[in-house]
Amino acid sequence: MKRRRTRGLRRQTDERVEKSKKVVLATTYELLTKSGLSGVSVDEVSRRSGVAKTTIYRHWPSRESLLLDACSQLRTRPAVPDTGKVKTDLEVLACGASMRLQEPWSTVMPSIIDAAERDRDLALLQSQIHAQMRGAFVTAIERGQERGELPHSQDARELVASILGPILYRRFFSREPLDEAFAKNVVARALQPYGSSTT
Amino acid sequence: MKRRRTRGLRRQTDERVEKSKKVVLATTYELLTKSGLSGVSVDEVSRRSGVAKTTIYRHWPSRESLLLDACSQLRTRPAVPDTGKVKTDLEVLACGASMRLQEPWSTVMPSIIDAAERDRDLALLQSQIHAQMRGAFVTAIERGQERGELPHSQDARELVASILGPILYRRFFSREPLDEAFAKNVVARALQPYGSSTT
Repeated sequence: MKRRRTRGLRRQTDERVEKSKKVVLATTYELLTKSGLSGVSVDEVSRRSGVAKTTIYRHWPSRESLLLDACSQLRTRPAVPDTGKVKTDLEVLACGASMRLQEPWSTVMPSIIDAAERDRDLALLQSQIHAQMRGAFVTAIERGQERGELPHSQDARELVASILGPILYRRFFSREPLDEAFAKNVVARALQPYGSSTT
Repeated sequence: MKRRRTRGLRRQTDERVEKSKKVVLATTYELLTKSGLSGVSVDEVSRRSGVAKTTIYRHWPSRESLLLDACSQLRTRPAVPDTGKVKTDLEVLACGASMRLQEPWSTVMPSIIDAAERDRDLALLQSQIHAQMRGAFVTAIERGQERGELPHSQDARELVASILGPILYRRFFSREPLDEAFAKNVVARALQPYGSSTT
């Protein structure tokens, strides 16, 4: 009887711990979206989440580890479409990336890139986020190579640069409108060297 | 006699003011390159430059105005080559941009982009820096259109996106090597749709 009560208490404690961890991560993420990486302090996260600083530091030994954990939510790999045509697959991916780059989390990206210029851990995180984004494109290109639509000699990463490059450029550098028409034009231009086999 | 002495004193004061302004700007720029925008405070600039905070605030009413002034040194327009061939002109510009993106000041760019997500003045500064970078490419493209190498219907800014995009992508997103061969490949791919008239 006593043992069962102890187990019940432990479960309750575990649930409480999980709940407060979730609240802290959600608050950190919200603050990141609002103020960028440099605007996030453990003090501010504690104040907004209502979770004590000592509790936060029990789960994350440093501000950096909390940031890394919150940012790692961005590391989601987009699903790879498989329409049987490389052009259509890349259009779906390019339009999807353009849409996602207009969601609130995308404002966090420059602050990660900025911090990555000076911080090894964040540079690693950035490369992981980027690998997820790029991975789906590489898979679509490799399938196109297997079907004979693209030559095997084509460096997949260079082709990704010619698609993701102009899209990220519009979002973060020239700040021009990023719509479906632009994304499709970018794919058409990138595939132009392979002529009719990709149209 | 007295008047002449007053003038001499004023000139000395002016020179001293100019000198301390230069020292403050150079220190701010150095700090920007080292720590990014968020690492620059008037306190730190004063400590490093040896110029009193009151003097700094006399010339720049706020941290933001000092940052804007220091960053505006980045707004230099590259010279536009005029070789008579649009491909060669764009290659020169693309290789030049790739080289400059490996100099220390380029580490400041992500912090400006990050701040621009949340600050109107810095967004304006970013667009000015970018307009200078893009302007040279647009001029080269328009000359190619006048010579009949490129169709007048081609949107110059879209073509710039297909050249600067992959280059900036390699520097800040995928962090892959950025060399002359890559820059030339990017130009070749961007001009591919116009066939033999640009080769």
